[in-house]
Amino acid sequence: MGIVVQKYGGSSVADATGIKRVAQRIVNTKKAGHDVVVVVSAMGDTTDELRDLAEQVTPLPPPRELDMLLTAGERISMALLAMAIAQLGHKARSFTGSQAGVITDAAHGNAKIIDITPGRIVNALKEDAIAIVAGFQGVSQTTKDITTLGRGASDTTAVALAAAMGAECCEIYSDVDGVFTADPRIVPSARKLDRISTEEMLEMAACGAKILHLRCVEYARRYEMPVHVRSSFSHKEGTWIVPTSTEEDEMEQAIIVGVAHDRSEAKITVVGVPDKVGEAARIFEALAAVEINIDMVVQNVSAAATGLTDISFTLPRADGQRAMSALARIQDEVGYDKLLYDDQIGKVSLIGAGMRSHPGITARFFSALASAGVNIEMISTSEIRISVIVDESEVDTAVQVTHTAFDLDSEAGEAVVYGGTGR
Amino acid sequence: MGIVVQKYGGSSVADATGIKRVAQRIVNTKKAGHDVVVVVSAMGDTTDELRDLAEQVTPLPPPRELDMLLTAGERISMALLAMAIAQLGHKARSFTGSQAGVITDAAHGNAKIIDITPGRIVNALKEDAIAIVAGFQGVSQTTKDITTLGRGASDTTAVALAAAMGAECCEIYSDVDGVFTADPRIVPSARKLDRISTEEMLEMAACGAKILHLRCVEYARRYEMPVHVRSSFSHKEGTWIVPTSTEEDEMEQAIIVGVAHDRSEAKITVVGVPDKVGEAARIFEALAAVEINIDMVVQNVSAAATGLTDISFTLPRADGQRAMSALARIQDEVGYDKLLYDDQIGKVSLIGAGMRSHPGITARFFSALASAGVNIEMISTSEIRISVIVDESEVDTAVQVTHTAFDLDSEAGEAVVYGGTGR
Repeated sequence: MGIVVQKYGGSSVADATGIKRVAQRIVNTKKAGHDVVVVVSAMGDTTDELRDLAEQVTPLPPPRELDMLLTAGERISMALLAMAIAQLGHKARSFTGSQAGVITDAAHGNAKIIDITPGRIVNALKEDAIAIVAGFQGVSQTTKDITTLGRGASDTTAVALAAAMGAECCEIYSDVDGVFTADPRIVPSARKLDRISTEEMLEMAACGAKILHLRCVEYARRYEMPVHVRSSFSHKEGTWIVPTSTEEDEMEQAIIVGVAHDRSEAKITVVGVPDKVGEAARIFEALAAVEINIDMVVQNVSAAATGLTDISFTLPRADGQRAMSALARIQDEVGYDKLLYDDQIGKVSLIGAGMRSHPGITARFFSALASAGVNIEMISTSEIRISVIVDESEVDTAVQVTHTAFDLDSEAGEAVVYGGTGR
Repeated sequence: MGIVVQKYGGSSVADATGIKRVAQRIVNTKKAGHDVVVVVSAMGDTTDELRDLAEQVTPLPPPRELDMLLTAGERISMALLAMAIAQLGHKARSFTGSQAGVITDAAHGNAKIIDITPGRIVNALKEDAIAIVAGFQGVSQTTKDITTLGRGASDTTAVALAAAMGAECCEIYSDVDGVFTADPRIVPSARKLDRISTEEMLEMAACGAKILHLRCVEYARRYEMPVHVRSSFSHKEGTWIVPTSTEEDEMEQAIIVGVAHDRSEAKITVVGVPDKVGEAARIFEALAAVEINIDMVVQNVSAAATGLTDISFTLPRADGQRAMSALARIQDEVGYDKLLYDDQIGKVSLIGAGMRSHPGITARFFSALASAGVNIEMISTSEIRISVIVDESEVDTAVQVTHTAFDLDSEAGEAVVYGGTGR
């Protein structure tokens, strides 16, 4: 049997008991005949606690030093996990991101993996040891400084390492059972998916499903690495994220895999932009210059009488202030009228590769929203996704009615839904 | 001006306030025109807390993984210290032991420094940055694994780095004001020494004075590096530990620099050893084979009638159990009668290079002990030290009467002593 890469999140290794439980699971996989490489996050809230410590010292920690600080978290969890495995009578060796050969660029706090040179991991496996690797961290190719890959990036470490090692699959363990058709906190009747294509998962992640880091899914797609998302607290099968389906598979596939939502965006409207060639480009250049990624864009049809148009776009709320400043600086140059800022919005997305071959999905989606009295502010679509921006207060309702309209509710859920809640 | 290496102990950086206070002190040194390299310990009780975590996972943590775990402590303190310095407007860069080029052997938990290759530190200084280095840790030359140098070894890191960098001096900051003539908790009238030779400091450290790590003093002596032991909580001058005095200096030197004591040893007596050539050697070979270092040894004059002798020696209490087992295994071979184990002992040592040229020191020492009714169980001497083993319950009294007998009490102390306490 081949190599299996397993990743355990912070909630799975929150204390000594959790670490021992995880160690037992790892040893079971080893005993089943696999070579096992484990990627581990920091214990519980360690990373946040370290951030708090930094804040007590300075409001503006230098990024290099913040990375040095935060990487202490995985160092602790990985060493303890290696100890717990040794206690069970198996060889284990822990490796920092740097030791594991996770080579990144020098963008502290949000570094990208450039290369993986897992020589020490390969040697550890050869010596019949289980390799434990710190998630979330690497070493800069140019400066040799310690870097971190951004929040939640241990998933990315795991899939990238699985790809570099030629692993059979990558198992991502957390405290949830898998990928659901919608957030079960909003839709109690949401079903766990047994299987989802990487293409669909990519849209789910991009649209706010928090179960997997977007970059992790991108890696899985690029390297065609099967990923199994599952709970470390049970032995149930989770959700398999598999390379995008072949034609044959697609025949049997559900039209829609799920409904995702995202409350982390804000909307900016640039009012009264002169409707001339190049004005819109000038606006987005100004945003790109300060490294702000925008998501959805809508340009109103210009009123022929005025020669003016409005441009609305969404972006991460965290970047809202910076975007407003950047746009304010070009007001004279562009000659727009004013800026409107709205962070009381939410995005609801319907995702499924099946919608490619099924007409009428958009109509069914919008009609469900209309029946529930939800107003659509913006729309964007891809081949396998339809997203709408609605008022933040209507996100839950929008997710619920959409989930029902596309027959995604589980049977238990259906009984509740059709039993009189009126949704 | 040249390079100054400063080392701050855990109590000096126990919280954000402490870290900011230390940062200010470092910046002041930098502003005074020095290149500054800082060695820092883990914050407060971090190392003990990490050990506790390990114990919750396993009673026998693999040494490699324990080192990986413990080194997280300095990683946290050094990154925070670098941030605090940046907040004061100065450049700072933190380095792990490995990044700082602290190359060690592979003896996890008690590694020895083999070499220091401080290229990155040199570069940081060239770029006008303050270099912050993790104490207590290094990287194995052969396995490339992370090692630790043993409890309290951040002092050693500091002096070794100072020597490798050709520093002017090495300042060791802690929460005490310097080296005292005796432990002030036992002798309230103990005086802070302004100056002590490395040779004397070596004996003080070896005899239980906890202010400096023994290996650190050995480094200071070998590389003739002046060490200034002082408090990070005040701006008072501390104690200078200076290369062993020249003849000229010695003229003015005090006869005795201090009284040290040590409660960490135990005594083993091998009773009824046949008084033949090679029997004693056999006993100490057995102890050496299990890597136990013995301290003092006494062999009684054999009673001609029986042809038997008793051999007593002292050793670290922590090794007591192992030593007894090792000796039990050779009972038949050596043919001794029985083993006695006593851990209710203490060692009191009188130290001073001046005693070389002053006869009568021993007589004055023993007479002081006798007057106080303290019984001497064992004696050992060097050129600049006399040590005695006494009952553990009499250690405080022995230290106090010796301190007074050699006129070491400060004036304030003398007033108390001669004012009627009867010591």
